[in-house]
Amino acid sequence: MIKVGIIGSTGYAGQEIVRLLLGHKQVEIVWFGSRSYINQKYYQVYQNMFQLVDAICLDDNMEELANQVDVIFTATPQGLCASLVNEEILKKVKIIDLSADFRIKDVGTYEEWYQLEHQSPQFIEEAVYGLCEINREQIKGARLIANPGCYPTCSTLSIYPLLKEGIIDGNTVIIDAKSGTSGAGRGAKVDNLYCEVNENIKAYGVASHRHTPEIEEQLSYAAGYPIHINFTPHLVPMNRGILVTAYASLKKDVSYEEVKAVYDSYYENERFVRVLDKDVCPQTRWVEGSNFVDVNFKIDPRTNRIVMMGAMDNLVKGAAGQAVQNMNLLFGFPETEGLVMAPVFP
Amino acid sequence: MIKVGIIGSTGYAGQEIVRLLLGHKQVEIVWFGSRSYINQKYYQVYQNMFQLVDAICLDDNMEELANQVDVIFTATPQGLCASLVNEEILKKVKIIDLSADFRIKDVGTYEEWYQLEHQSPQFIEEAVYGLCEINREQIKGARLIANPGCYPTCSTLSIYPLLKEGIIDGNTVIIDAKSGTSGAGRGAKVDNLYCEVNENIKAYGVASHRHTPEIEEQLSYAAGYPIHINFTPHLVPMNRGILVTAYASLKKDVSYEEVKAVYDSYYENERFVRVLDKDVCPQTRWVEGSNFVDVNFKIDPRTNRIVMMGAMDNLVKGAAGQAVQNMNLLFGFPETEGLVMAPVFP
Amino acid sequence: MIKVGIIGSTGYAGQEIVRLLLGHKQVEIVWFGSRSYINQKYYQVYQNMFQLVDAICLDDNMEELANQVDVIFTATPQGLCASLVNEEILKKVKIIDLSADFRIKDVGTYEEWYQLEHQSPQFIEEAVYGLCEINREQIKGARLIANPGCYPTCSTLSIYPLLKEGIIDGNTVIIDAKSGTSGAGRGAKVDNLYCEVNENIKAYGVASHRHTPEIEEQLSYAAGYPIHINFTPHLVPMNRGILVTAYASLKKDVSYEEVKAVYDSYYENERFVRVLDKDVCPQTRWVEGSNFVDVNFKIDPRTNRIVMMGAMDNLVKGAAGQAVQNMNLLFGFPETEGLVMAPVFP
Amino acid sequence: MIKVGIIGSTGYAGQEIVRLLLGHKQVEIVWFGSRSYINQKYYQVYQNMFQLVDAICLDDNMEELANQVDVIFTATPQGLCASLVNEEILKKVKIIDLSADFRIKDVGTYEEWYQLEHQSPQFIEEAVYGLCEINREQIKGARLIANPGCYPTCSTLSIYPLLKEGIIDGNTVIIDAKSGTSGAGRGAKVDNLYCEVNENIKAYGVASHRHTPEIEEQLSYAAGYPIHINFTPHLVPMNRGILVTAYASLKKDVSYEEVKAVYDSYYENERFVRVLDKDVCPQTRWVEGSNFVDVNFKIDPRTNRIVMMGAMDNLVKGAAGQAVQNMNLLFGFPETEGLVMAPVFP
Repeated sequence: MIKVGIIGSTGYAGQEIVRLLLGHKQVEIVWFGSRSYINQKYYQVYQNMFQLVDAICLDDNMEELANQVDVIFTATPQGLCASLVNEEILKKVKIIDLSADFRIKDVGTYEEWYQLEHQSPQFIEEAVYGLCEINREQIKGARLIANPGCYPTCSTLSIYPLLKEGIIDGNTVIIDAKSGTSGAGRGAKVDNLYCEVNENIKAYGVASHRHTPEIEEQLSYAAGYPIHINFTPHLVPMNRGILVTAYASLKKDVSYEEVKAVYDSYYENERFVRVLDKDVCPQTRWVEGSNFVDVNFKIDPRTNRIVMMGAMDNLVKGAAGQAVQNMNLLFGFPETEGLVMAPVFP
Repeated sequence: MIKVGIIGSTGYAGQEIVRLLLGHKQVEIVWFGSRSYINQKYYQVYQNMFQLVDAICLDDNMEELANQVDVIFTATPQGLCASLVNEEILKKVKIIDLSADFRIKDVGTYEEWYQLEHQSPQFIEEAVYGLCEINREQIKGARLIANPGCYPTCSTLSIYPLLKEGIIDGNTVIIDAKSGTSGAGRGAKVDNLYCEVNENIKAYGVASHRHTPEIEEQLSYAAGYPIHINFTPHLVPMNRGILVTAYASLKKDVSYEEVKAVYDSYYENERFVRVLDKDVCPQTRWVEGSNFVDVNFKIDPRTNRIVMMGAMDNLVKGAAGQAVQNMNLLFGFPETEGLVMAPVFP
Repeated sequence: MIKVGIIGSTGYAGQEIVRLLLGHKQVEIVWFGSRSYINQKYYQVYQNMFQLVDAICLDDNMEELANQVDVIFTATPQGLCASLVNEEILKKVKIIDLSADFRIKDVGTYEEWYQLEHQSPQFIEEAVYGLCEINREQIKGARLIANPGCYPTCSTLSIYPLLKEGIIDGNTVIIDAKSGTSGAGRGAKVDNLYCEVNENIKAYGVASHRHTPEIEEQLSYAAGYPIHINFTPHLVPMNRGILVTAYASLKKDVSYEEVKAVYDSYYENERFVRVLDKDVCPQTRWVEGSNFVDVNFKIDPRTNRIVMMGAMDNLVKGAAGQAVQNMNLLFGFPETEGLVMAPVFP
Repeated sequence: MIKVGIIGSTGYAGQEIVRLLLGHKQVEIVWFGSRSYINQKYYQVYQNMFQLVDAICLDDNMEELANQVDVIFTATPQGLCASLVNEEILKKVKIIDLSADFRIKDVGTYEEWYQLEHQSPQFIEEAVYGLCEINREQIKGARLIANPGCYPTCSTLSIYPLLKEGIIDGNTVIIDAKSGTSGAGRGAKVDNLYCEVNENIKAYGVASHRHTPEIEEQLSYAAGYPIHINFTPHLVPMNRGILVTAYASLKKDVSYEEVKAVYDSYYENERFVRVLDKDVCPQTRWVEGSNFVDVNFKIDPRTNRIVMMGAMDNLVKGAAGQAVQNMNLLFGFPETEGLVMAPVFP
């Protein structure tokens, strides 16, 4: 039984960590951090937690937290974790950061895309990018986990095997992604009002979204050469879910069976990545509420391109679920503990 | 470990039973019944179950099922369970019927409202109405459970205490209910198409919905005298959830505290009924995916009426969850086994 | 050709006035008022107006407006119109106020329910309640129109004939209403975020909503005696639409045909009120984007009550459309000018 | 004043033609064709038309229709129009076919993608592809109009100018499109049920959608060489709207201003194509209910690609609105007659 603290527990991702950990047998949440709701009952912010969580919300205090808990989740805006972490803290506690602060190895790239000065670049090198299916072994020994972004998780897992195996040309990759609205967070903005999102679809951050360099870095590791991509996210009128539709040119003449075999070789032992049957397209409804990523592909011989698709729940595998999966790896728990629920449909 | 068979496993309620039982430690589903999808893989009908359920769908065969399983769930249209059940079967197996066949004690009332001839009226008397919070002890020893309807569950639990304690006048009860669309089932009908339901609200079955006599019967038991109500269901553009807004005239001068004390006395030990804090209205989003019913009330001194409100997930407490809760009671499992998940939000 | 100014043109109701007036042959909008977007292009706030409206948003200035225009629409929060209007202005210009400032004749009732001190009670008496189907003649000669609230419009038109004809008992009226989310306005509040509204239904303002006294006043006029009602609004995950389901006890034994004849006698010459065929329930989708109110009823002989139903678009007949209808009456235009479009479905 | 007949008037596109023509000053609809609802009142199928349309639905009879009307709209499944049309009919009446029967000049391509034998290939050559902004002059003199598909309309208008001007490489074009659910029609299929579409996004018809050759043909005309593209449509949980996000490699070094000037040169005199301001992304909500197509683009210098975007209402510019626009051209009416309404928001 370990003790957990959550900074930013009243955001959507923070609340999802709470939901998941309530079903985890080996943890106790002892710190519900929330600057906005200090001293209020947590369940008054999220009534689904009525009679399940009796705690009050506490201010951010990473030093104090480090003394009380075994692991801290930071589900906070960019910059916060980097501004709070230090060697003293890392000696005492594991940190799983859901922000982008430690995801990108090149601090200049981070500062350019995020328009922030990094407050603790000295920890970037040691931080492990917590994409469990790719970096499982390094995660186990880490002190500081950079929990991947939602779009990068879904994109990377959809594309990685074909890039790693040299089947596609990395610099032809175009990722057209679609996300539910919980990805935009719980801030009170006109753009996220019901009437603005409902009955609408739009692209945003075209050629400028901050997940672009994160995806490029991971794909470059896979390919072994630097990759630049087009990445276009879209906002979809639904609560949860990310769908990635990615395009790339084939470098060789491959059959369905050959490509399927590549995906299977990477994922057949992965509990949370499901390679679907032939011609079954990933859909967000089939993974909602779960930690699954469903992937599949379609070869288009007319254009010699391949369409790679992935679907997942942005709040689970794209945020809280992957964070819990990382925690399980860090502490030697079964990797699936707290994460075995079936997707909820409809 | 018991063995379970589900007749009608490919309807929305049937699939929800599957989802819940996958997280139940003491059961194994051995029969996925579905007339419409015989010999197809279950996961091909519900892709959320890919890699979780490998079974194929089987035809209905209650005799054979009775030999193989300990309990049968019938998640089927009205009339089917009554047409299949017999003494031989009931000697071998417990049946939890999610249809209305055994909910109404007066067979004439059933036949009038459902426009069906009842095929096995001899079992109506022994069938126990499976509203766990009210009939817990009778359920434990039953062979045949009539799992309550979705509207009746939410309505009865919201109103029952005040009627039982004589605080409201039963014949002034008006129930205005709102349901998500999964309650309409998975049949391919124009009325249930996305474009017909989305961006719309309507009443249906006004003064004629078949859940009316079921609610009246339960409320009459509570009151001790025959009750007739107005019941108006509405279809809401959302997947899951039922909200009941019920009105009644107060028979005595009562304070908020007195009424609250009545609700608390009935529900404070009930895990699945949450009496909310003062002035907090039940909302379906706070119970989605869970077995909770959230209830509350508001006294209106201007009209001497009380507004009673209840919210629940129609597929969980309103169908599959309550069915599992009944199964737990029947077999002496902890009543909450398989049902302890926190509501999913957003 | 008259000139129009709109104060509050960047709220949802204000924008709907713009949309409707763009299709009106006898008006020109010369003032797009918006405190929040002064000097910005109107179309930058509402991109649907790109290439249709080239004007910039202007500050509120009712004195100046009175010199420039023939009629002012105030689509603003409660209290603003009352704080700006004066005799000088009313001598120069007609005002159609979409707020509640002049709807309620008893200033004490207004101040109690709105928790505001009324800034110009001297104009309450002369203001005409702009429910066109009821007060058509008084509207024609008015200087100041109190444009009715959305819930009161739909409620009153659904109930009025039966109350006026003494068929129902006014003090048994219970109104359970459901509204789309545009009724909550465009303010940036967490409660109105997409993820908070979507997949949810809730009651709000139970026994305390501010439209209650407005409805009661209108129903009391109809009945000829003071009426107190229960009124419960609900928030529905859709953009537009209000559905009213109202209940009352019958004072006499009436047939379907008799009640139908009453409704017909009130509405058969009304272009914007449609009394539906027998057993057809009003639905918001059938009136969306139009100025129609669809009404119907169902007698329940089991309880001796009648269920009265009405559906309309809250932004059209419930706000902007009715305001334009009032303008048409004020200026002697055909009452339907600018309002003849068919409902948009789906 | 001309007379109009509609075959398939009870589908979503057919009903939209009715809605638009009710606001058209120069037409009268005299034939509401609908095989499924023969002899039923049209308004009983679409209650929005109550008191607006009193006609009954009639069987298909193109010969008889040709005698009675000036123009026939066929809003029917593929193959129907081709099976009914003949020289006799075309001598008497204009036909605007909303199906794909006459869109593709190569009958082999049509038969391959649609898996149908074409019943009247002799008329393919004379049929004019009714994309008004491109083929305006040919349309004016035509007898038979092939009204473009929804995806092809939005895709072609978004991409056409850059291809025509040689700015992009046609064989690098990738179109990732998203559509509301009305595009799937009103057929009662499980896949289109509310609970199946809501809270979900999926790709469908990947590398095989039948609009692919139609788009390719139009783009090839623009480019002057044969083009093959990737086209992936997605189903979005909303009623109306199509968004196209298209990618292509730039053939030359161009600035924002240069590309903007190209778009403007093609569309500045087009009433229904709006080239948005810099960095404003097209969104379906801003065109809903109207005949507009909003287009814009973003150059990505990092990849030397350009992202072209277009949004429109699939039922208006993507079907019924464009059909009316074609009718206006055929009969010499003002091109915008019946089509000038502002988009409806929210």
